[in-house]
Amino acid sequence: MIAVDVGGTDIKAALFDESGRMLGLSRTPTPRNGELTALSVIYRVEELRLQFAVTFPAVLPRAVGLLVPGVVDDDAGIGVLSTNLQWANVPFKQLTEELIHLPTTFSHDVRAAGEAEFRLGAARPFRNVVVLVIGTGIAGSLFIDGHAHTGGGYAGEIGHAIIDPAGPLCGCGSRGCLETIASAGAIVRRYEQRTGARLRGAREVLALAEAGDVAATAVWSEALDALALSITQLAAILAPEAVVIGGGLAQAGEKLFVPLRERVSTLLSFHRQPLIVPASIGENAGLLGGALRARDLVS
Amino acid sequence: MIAVDVGGTDIKAALFDESGRMLGLSRTPTPRNGELTALSVIYRVEELRLQFAVTFPAVLPRAVGLLVPGVVDDDAGIGVLSTNLQWANVPFKQLTEELIHLPTTFSHDVRAAGEAEFRLGAARPFRNVVVLVIGTGIAGSLFIDGHAHTGGGYAGEIGHAIIDPAGPLCGCGSRGCLETIASAGAIVRRYEQRTGARLRGAREVLALAEAGDVAATAVWSEALDALALSITQLAAILAPEAVVIGGGLAQAGEKLFVPLRERVSTLLSFHRQPLIVPASIGENAGLLGGALRARDLVS
Repeated sequence: MIAVDVGGTDIKAALFDESGRMLGLSRTPTPRNGELTALSVIYRVEELRLQFAVTFPAVLPRAVGLLVPGVVDDDAGIGVLSTNLQWANVPFKQLTEELIHLPTTFSHDVRAAGEAEFRLGAARPFRNVVVLVIGTGIAGSLFIDGHAHTGGGYAGEIGHAIIDPAGPLCGCGSRGCLETIASAGAIVRRYEQRTGARLRGAREVLALAEAGDVAATAVWSEALDALALSITQLAAILAPEAVVIGGGLAQAGEKLFVPLRERVSTLLSFHRQPLIVPASIGENAGLLGGALRARDLVS
Repeated sequence: MIAVDVGGTDIKAALFDESGRMLGLSRTPTPRNGELTALSVIYRVEELRLQFAVTFPAVLPRAVGLLVPGVVDDDAGIGVLSTNLQWANVPFKQLTEELIHLPTTFSHDVRAAGEAEFRLGAARPFRNVVVLVIGTGIAGSLFIDGHAHTGGGYAGEIGHAIIDPAGPLCGCGSRGCLETIASAGAIVRRYEQRTGARLRGAREVLALAEAGDVAATAVWSEALDALALSITQLAAILAPEAVVIGGGLAQAGEKLFVPLRERVSTLLSFHRQPLIVPASIGENAGLLGGALRARDLVS
């Protein structure tokens, strides 16, 4: 299987064997071509397939798993919307199959990562579980009674659940979305706005907070409060057995998970308290999920 | 079918024929017997069955649909928790079947009302829909990809989704739950707290707000804001096609629905905008849902 994960900056592509072992991985900048970006991306997928054919001449891929960001309708195979990559209603699955002549499965990058966690990772013990990926933004995938729930591509947008209607303006146009407060990107941005400092990542905000920096402590604490509140919303609405958290912010480990669990436990009462656990598959979870879905197509 | 809806004040019982037509309806106070309340309720169900046997001697009920409030595990047939009626982990389904010798289905009052709306009412056109019942409290039932999602009895507790962690203390022990701000009960209570007046219902608060009363306007507006925020949470997390609202507050009609739709539409951006529509079955939706579930048992 070939899995291709299209991000805002890079495209990652990997070749997997039947057992789910990664044979090769390549990374290439995401082409930017205005309103033709979607087509450029599909041609780039074909280039990547050819590169793998050269590097691994003995491996004949049988299916493609293509993942893109934004609003994605998995079932229809359509990229509904990416404001960042400037496409709307692109029939990615059909166009890719026509160009590459391989069965193609099409999904959202975070949902594919969630699927890998659900089938092989930290979410595997649960039938009702939410997988959150917290990085530049925040997105989630929902598994309800053992099945992924996509809501036509609109479900699991926990980064755009509104925490505070008077909060910061979000790139999506709403105010006070969770990811304007609690994403790794927001944590850096909010610290920089308050202090004028320039940082390289949320890791530095956490280090400053641990060293007693007042602004860093406030920003980190507000992020935890917002995340905890969103998890209580999930608990009241969906009652998942667990919330699995991956992405860059989860690298903070127990410095994230311990105070987050405390906050959620304090806020909830009779609700089903979800376990809050780190993702286990790592940064290539999306690619692995894409490969699993591609394998489903041909097995 | 006999459907019995156990409320905090009254038990409503109804006899339905195979086509779902209600043949008879009776109402009796909910017995209060401390820790034995659950058993008293089950004996009351048997009494109600005998009453129907006397009144409708030609009708032989084939199944019972029993509905109770609180946390209810439909699948296991267990009343997990009712702080109001003082029970925990009562195997209602089993006990009722042993006493009454009729197949019994067991569910939550609001979920049964939701099921009636989903199968026969305003939620029927949708596969992904949330039915909210707003009265003394607020509860919801979730239908996801055409199936009810109960989360072991803990899902759909939208009245206990936290809107403001610094908000009013809720009966459940949390702070700022939606129903402390936006239930019909809360609307009356909050107006009374601010003014010292005594009212008979939320309807009066709405009338006062329309007449320009400042406190009533504020209380009504805060309730709408909180409801709108909860609906945006549903949109971001679950992306339902529609939110159907029933219960006493929905009697306000367009005075509720018009400003609520406006607020939700203003708050959301790219999210899937749910239709917000009134329930259509009325106050006996719970009984009808119980009867439908009972009929499923024997057909």
